[in-house]
Amino acid sequence: MTQSEVGHITYSRGGQAESRHEIHVAVVDANGHLKAHCGNADLTTFPRSSSKPVQALPLAEAMPDLPQDELAVACASHAGTPEHLAVVQRLLARSGSSVADLRCGTHPPFDAQAAASLIQSQQTPTPLHHNCSGKHAGMLLACVRLGLPREGYTHPAHPLQVQIRALHATLADVPLEAIHAGVDGCSVPAFALPLQGTARIFARLAAPSGSHAQALARIAQAMQAHPFLIAGPGRLDTTLMPLVPGLTAKMGAEAFYGMALQETPYGPLGVAFKVMDGGERARSHMALAVLKALGVPLTEAVWALAPSELRNWAGQEVGSIQTHLPLVWS
Amino acid sequence: MTQSEVGHITYSRGGQAESRHEIHVAVVDANGHLKAHCGNADLTTFPRSSSKPVQALPLAEAMPDLPQDELAVACASHAGTPEHLAVVQRLLARSGSSVADLRCGTHPPFDAQAAASLIQSQQTPTPLHHNCSGKHAGMLLACVRLGLPREGYTHPAHPLQVQIRALHATLADVPLEAIHAGVDGCSVPAFALPLQGTARIFARLAAPSGSHAQALARIAQAMQAHPFLIAGPGRLDTTLMPLVPGLTAKMGAEAFYGMALQETPYGPLGVAFKVMDGGERARSHMALAVLKALGVPLTEAVWALAPSELRNWAGQEVGSIQTHLPLVWS
Repeated sequence: MTQSEVGHITYSRGGQAESRHEIHVAVVDANGHLKAHCGNADLTTFPRSSSKPVQALPLAEAMPDLPQDELAVACASHAGTPEHLAVVQRLLARSGSSVADLRCGTHPPFDAQAAASLIQSQQTPTPLHHNCSGKHAGMLLACVRLGLPREGYTHPAHPLQVQIRALHATLADVPLEAIHAGVDGCSVPAFALPLQGTARIFARLAAPSGSHAQALARIAQAMQAHPFLIAGPGRLDTTLMPLVPGLTAKMGAEAFYGMALQETPYGPLGVAFKVMDGGERARSHMALAVLKALGVPLTEAVWALAPSELRNWAGQEVGSIQTHLPLVWS
Repeated sequence: MTQSEVGHITYSRGGQAESRHEIHVAVVDANGHLKAHCGNADLTTFPRSSSKPVQALPLAEAMPDLPQDELAVACASHAGTPEHLAVVQRLLARSGSSVADLRCGTHPPFDAQAAASLIQSQQTPTPLHHNCSGKHAGMLLACVRLGLPREGYTHPAHPLQVQIRALHATLADVPLEAIHAGVDGCSVPAFALPLQGTARIFARLAAPSGSHAQALARIAQAMQAHPFLIAGPGRLDTTLMPLVPGLTAKMGAEAFYGMALQETPYGPLGVAFKVMDGGERARSHMALAVLKALGVPLTEAVWALAPSELRNWAGQEVGSIQTHLPLVWS
């Protein structure tokens, strides 16, 4: 077990610490070796939606000619804006499927304006608005192209899910039998991996090689080319990717984060971190701290994504947000 | 320093721990002595809105004839429903003040239906909708009754805020100079106290004695009599108080919780706990665990407030929520 002092994001009020998030970080190089870490690099946890690039891999390999925006939305945790929905619908139609075939469940759009528009027009959300609808539309299309039944596509024993599990094992360099499976918020299997295993997946996205190299490269390109589709207005993946050359970033629920960095002073790197308590607000601050620690040049526009001052409802500065990242290099 | 193993609320998925909240707890008896604790009983932290019963004390003492519902809403973090707003407006009018005098800032109603109604009617939120508007209306009225200027009522040096700070010191049994002040989300001073100091305040609410006894008793009665006004639909204070006889409960931001228990096998008790990372979702589970540990009989209706199963968007059971409360008795 590779363990060291954990990282922290601390929220202070008037100079007095008020709340603190504990964070574990793993950084892996292009050879798949642990390059740096903080906390427990072997922490077993669920990447959740940070797994989406892997979950889209069978689709990418079955459909080399899939339009780039549709591949991007298959990797997305989208905010449910009309722009997202249009691409999901196009992807869904490509397999002759409809909204009724989606098994992701339903929640209001993450985007506040899209959610307000639904309310104003007295509409209720559909599975299309679910942040994972693109992934599900992509899975349905993968089934059709691979000659698999669409029926039961979310079940752990469905051949597509079996294949996705095997891809996690291969890309993370983890024995298949060591991968614990749960059920995700959208009803497909969620796989728990050691943190450095997920970092290894992102290292492969940053520097694709071997049997899945071409599809991994296309996925990273699609995500970088369509940052808006990957998340939405004001969301970290969307705002960060255009500001950091060569970055493919994907958030996961419960404050997981994965980053594939094509360009750092240490060569291509894969990063995975987990905010132990699932506190989503700590993600942007830790992402920037990790990028800085890895020697990635960050502009003022990047730092503006994680302001260090804390403001109240009247806009008054009432405290600060501090980052502690005791990274240990291997 | 009184320190022991911290408590936890753990979110697991498919049997695998995914996220974990650390929690510090202090329990104080009617004599103001620490009765039990878990983690650091001296943890310095901000009770935030759990201070509202103390912040309403000058009002309660200046106006013994204030209608009970108005006293309740002065202690509330309300959800901004029309019912809440009506009482706040009545309280505000009592001092000849108007919405323009409120210095709390503005946010959309916490209650989803109230927020949706505003959107549907194309209205924007006003300071009345701020969860602290009742507290602010109460402070304005206290100023008028005490012959203090309304102007600058939120400033730390305003005589009302100076008095509220002194009340914190007295009720928590903490030296005045040891109380660190920050600024709250609604722009009034927020005072940091040792956790057992806040528990002592709640013990005094449970068993009022001494110089402020009458007003404290009236505040506890008002909060118990109007649980809806204290919070709102589906919120913990509102749902829990009617189910636990003799309980006065008040949540604070960043996952603070205070409970005054008039009836336990150990006599009246005051409880304060803080979820270290500010994770609000952990509050209800820990509140029930503490009540159970203190021998308070809990019905099925109470346990239903903190379900131990975790469900996804499709309603499927995907995990569980576990409580660990290694309470150490003094």
